[in-house]
Amino acid sequence: MDRRKFLKEGVKLGVVAVAGFGLHSAVAGRKEPVKLPLPYVKLDPEKVAERAYRYYKKHHCCYGVFASILDELKERVGGPYLGIPSEMMVYGSGGAGGWGTLCGTLNGASAIFCLTAKDYKNLIDALYDWYQKTALPIYVPKGKKAFPQSVAHSPLCHMSVQRWCASATKFFKTPVLYNSKKRSERCARLTADVARKAVELLNDYHFKLVVPAKVKGSEKTKMECNICHEISKKT
Amino acid sequence: MDRRKFLKEGVKLGVVAVAGFGLHSAVAGRKEPVKLPLPYVKLDPEKVAERAYRYYKKHHCCYGVFASILDELKERVGGPYLGIPSEMMVYGSGGAGGWGTLCGTLNGASAIFCLTAKDYKNLIDALYDWYQKTALPIYVPKGKKAFPQSVAHSPLCHMSVQRWCASATKFFKTPVLYNSKKRSERCARLTADVARKAVELLNDYHFKLVVPAKVKGSEKTKMECNICHEISKKT
Repeated sequence: MDRRKFLKEGVKLGVVAVAGFGLHSAVAGRKEPVKLPLPYVKLDPEKVAERAYRYYKKHHCCYGVFASILDELKERVGGPYLGIPSEMMVYGSGGAGGWGTLCGTLNGASAIFCLTAKDYKNLIDALYDWYQKTALPIYVPKGKKAFPQSVAHSPLCHMSVQRWCASATKFFKTPVLYNSKKRSERCARLTADVARKAVELLNDYHFKLVVPAKVKGSEKTKMECNICHEISKKT
Repeated sequence: MDRRKFLKEGVKLGVVAVAGFGLHSAVAGRKEPVKLPLPYVKLDPEKVAERAYRYYKKHHCCYGVFASILDELKERVGGPYLGIPSEMMVYGSGGAGGWGTLCGTLNGASAIFCLTAKDYKNLIDALYDWYQKTALPIYVPKGKKAFPQSVAHSPLCHMSVQRWCASATKFFKTPVLYNSKKRSERCARLTADVARKAVELLNDYHFKLVVPAKVKGSEKTKMECNICHEISKKT
């Protein structure tokens, strides 16, 4: 996006450049609240994936996805993004404060979608559907070996992690537990994968005008029913 | 909190008052990012609950809790809060984009905890534990009757909602489905309840120095194991 055009638009939205802060911008207050969606520029999915992997080591999965994309937008767009604390989604790790609910990577990506796209629900559907059907992690850090993969069948942290632990236990021929370095490394790589996929979806949405189809699901939830309602037969 | 003292602190944090915006504040950019936790002032739980109930009608549960508390803080504290878009957690409704995972009210409250409290994990544990063990909704809008209640036994939207629908079906002696006005009204009242509880926890944390105990849970998740792993026997 043309920086001049963005700044012009920015002024209308209540975003102004502040003397003394150089290119830094100020966010207008009560009368002109920050309106969504915010402007999005094309990001490099691979670069964001690497950043997300590094960020995982700092504050784990949800921060990894959310802040890696947000910080790119702070650097590339600035303006209204600068007022959003990069650490505000840290809580999403371990499925929200360790509760094992929504995978933190998905929670972080969803917040980014909500900030940057009117059709955030379609993007959420595309990401969650991909997440639960794809053998992950795919990302391999430079100089390291590929990791065993698993299909989560669910957007829930607990399901996703336990399926991977089972798969990794077979692969490594030794028990791989939740509280292990291997599991943490798997989640770091998964963080890179989800950040990359989220950026790909946003790039396609904004620059190829691809609006993903909604996932149908049941009336009650979009999760697969038989994963829980049959679980005692499976585990 | 003394406004003058806050502004003084604010300058240290990189928050400055901008000429031309009156009391509105500007958020400094790259070199001085917004640092968490942000300053918190004592809020009125009942006032926030009413606001959350009204906000539910606008953008549903997650926004209801997140924005009702955030907007109070924007009005009472201003400064760094003004740069955070109130609509950025809208996506959490229906357990994140309708997926039925983490209850949106809990997701929204968790983001507020993360913004305002170093011990956000303890507050998350206290809130989720209360949520899954308490008969809800408690909130009754002015001039309306009390609603039937249910105990969620889980922080997951789908579980929470379906248990309430079962309870309401008995109470009203007619099927109460997910896609019904009654279910929506229940979630609006629940939004008020969770916003009130979140503010009570924050007030106690900041002004009575109460740090809630962490929930132990298993190694893998803090959710109750037998809710899912036995579910096919129960439903």
